[in-house]
Amino acid sequence: MDLKSMIRVIEDFPHKGISFKDITTLIKEGDAFREVVDIISNDLKGKDVDYIAGPESRGFLLGAAVAYSLGVGFIPVRKPGKLPADTISYEYELEYGTNTLEIHTDAIEKGAKVAIVDDLLATGSTIYSAAKLIESLGGEVVAMEFLIELESLKGRDKLNNYYVNSLIKYDK
Amino acid sequence: MDLKSMIRVIEDFPHKGISFKDITTLIKEGDAFREVVDIISNDLKGKDVDYIAGPESRGFLLGAAVAYSLGVGFIPVRKPGKLPADTISYEYELEYGTNTLEIHTDAIEKGAKVAIVDDLLATGSTIYSAAKLIESLGGEVVAMEFLIELESLKGRDKLNNYYVNSLIKYDK
Repeated sequence: MDLKSMIRVIEDFPHKGISFKDITTLIKEGDAFREVVDIISNDLKGKDVDYIAGPESRGFLLGAAVAYSLGVGFIPVRKPGKLPADTISYEYELEYGTNTLEIHTDAIEKGAKVAIVDDLLATGSTIYSAAKLIESLGGEVVAMEFLIELESLKGRDKLNNYYVNSLIKYDK
Repeated sequence: MDLKSMIRVIEDFPHKGISFKDITTLIKEGDAFREVVDIISNDLKGKDVDYIAGPESRGFLLGAAVAYSLGVGFIPVRKPGKLPADTISYEYELEYGTNTLEIHTDAIEKGAKVAIVDDLLATGSTIYSAAKLIESLGGEVVAMEFLIELESLKGRDKLNNYYVNSLIKYDK
């Protein structure tokens, strides 16, 4: 299936100069959504994954379906104040300002193998932060899986200590 | 499986007096997450569902996995400004202030059969709003599926024109 043709590109969203990759046109097609989840799940077989983690909110869409497909649990990585129990947080820099992610301190046991799933690899900051949170709890990040990769933003360089896989590539 | 015992109840989150039902402790267990998704998916079999719709963000977790399980597409219902293409919106009242939900205008074709999946049925306002958005586009809401129902909040009364199913009940 030509998955790339099912992504809708919207210019200047959410800011001028951003060429936004809209995945809603792909995931509304049952066959395409299933193919994406199956490709990611197959790539994770043999990695002995205990958990799938995904950042809020689009990471929940693919990540939860991959977790279901593999029969493992899902761990949400969320914006501040959303998780109700004890959390640890990681702050990272954006072009303007900072962003913070949180994870429950009891989300992951020491030594657990975790794969992170998200819709988009851009600069890699979000996923790098999610990985640091998982590692702070003693988890091992065995893979990072993305539906889309924006290659010119060089997220792969930032994540060069990890196994990284993406299904659809754009320059930016 | 005793699914209810896997929900963590946290008092006074996010506000004093709220007894928050934390589903993260359930969905991190692969067997329990799979069982929940399978129960919902089985309940939807025979309803000829074309799409699963789910409200941001926790509705994405269960909804996307159910969509994958059934082999149908997933339609996100989001907070304002998150969906990049043309949207319609629905504003509804909360105890203090209002909330707004949006859906892409091309998300659903006329006559499509849609099941809405969310983690929690409380007053029913969120799901009622999601249903109105789907119906505005000509879709038919054939079922509403919830992991948890807070019975004393009488969400079922607000949704009495719809088929409603929930897996775990609390008084409040």
